[in-house]
Amino acid sequence: MPDKKIALKKLEAFLMEHLPLARAAGICVDEYTGNKLVVSAPLDKNINDKGTAFGGSLYNLCVITAWGMTDLKAKELGLKGDIVVAKGEINYLRPLKGRLVASVTSPIEEELVHIEKSYKSRGKAIFNLDVTVLDEQLKPCVKFHGKYAVLAS
Amino acid sequence: MPDKKIALKKLEAFLMEHLPLARAAGICVDEYTGNKLVVSAPLDKNINDKGTAFGGSLYNLCVITAWGMTDLKAKELGLKGDIVVAKGEINYLRPLKGRLVASVTSPIEEELVHIEKSYKSRGKAIFNLDVTVLDEQLKPCVKFHGKYAVLAS
Repeated sequence: MPDKKIALKKLEAFLMEHLPLARAAGICVDEYTGNKLVVSAPLDKNINDKGTAFGGSLYNLCVITAWGMTDLKAKELGLKGDIVVAKGEINYLRPLKGRLVASVTSPIEEELVHIEKSYKSRGKAIFNLDVTVLDEQLKPCVKFHGKYAVLAS
Repeated sequence: MPDKKIALKKLEAFLMEHLPLARAAGICVDEYTGNKLVVSAPLDKNINDKGTAFGGSLYNLCVITAWGMTDLKAKELGLKGDIVVAKGEINYLRPLKGRLVASVTSPIEEELVHIEKSYKSRGKAIFNLDVTVLDEQLKPCVKFHGKYAVLAS
């Protein structure tokens, strides 16, 4: 099994083991290319009274997706320690009537170099990540920004 | 049963009926005074790998709490229609090791007058609400700001 596929399966297993709300939401880790991570969840477990995706569920998916990218990149860079979310911002742009699919791209190479330096010099590195959820017509339903800290243990 | 108590029970029943993620999180509507709404959830259903409250769960609780206040005030003002969340921002200040308890206060009288006018003239009213989650020492763990729209049906 290629390394990226193993990393994806480990991430999914971790989420299922440690986060009851991820289990309840039916979170699946769908794809990891090294540059992009895709995480999804079924509508029925995340629906609201209007038959669309619930705002709390959309945030839950996004915060997990960005956490996942932080965890994957931290492991690739050899940064050990706890990862904590410091801040989240979400804009709801249009209702979503189908499966919730969130995607996040990796910080660019220059940012990863800065992250690694910061971890080594200060024992702390910050990941700033943007997650998008598109609808079936590929229009954005949600834009999320999250700030995560990796704290050297 | 006093009106406020009936409103609280109706809100809790609505959340349990329509939001699977609220059920999964074990959300309880604890108190509604007319000015303050308190909503809570047990740690075990909302825990993370570090044994503290999961960031997605804290947001989920906060977005439901502020939605609840919007719904209660909209009903009291006679504003009918869908309530949608437009934006959420959350800052995680310190880890929480116990029950998740969120509280929100009502918009002040002046804001409620403005909300009512806006609904009548434009068919839309905006609620801006701040939710706080305190720990057992009454220190803030989370500060959430949400923007909600009531859209006349």
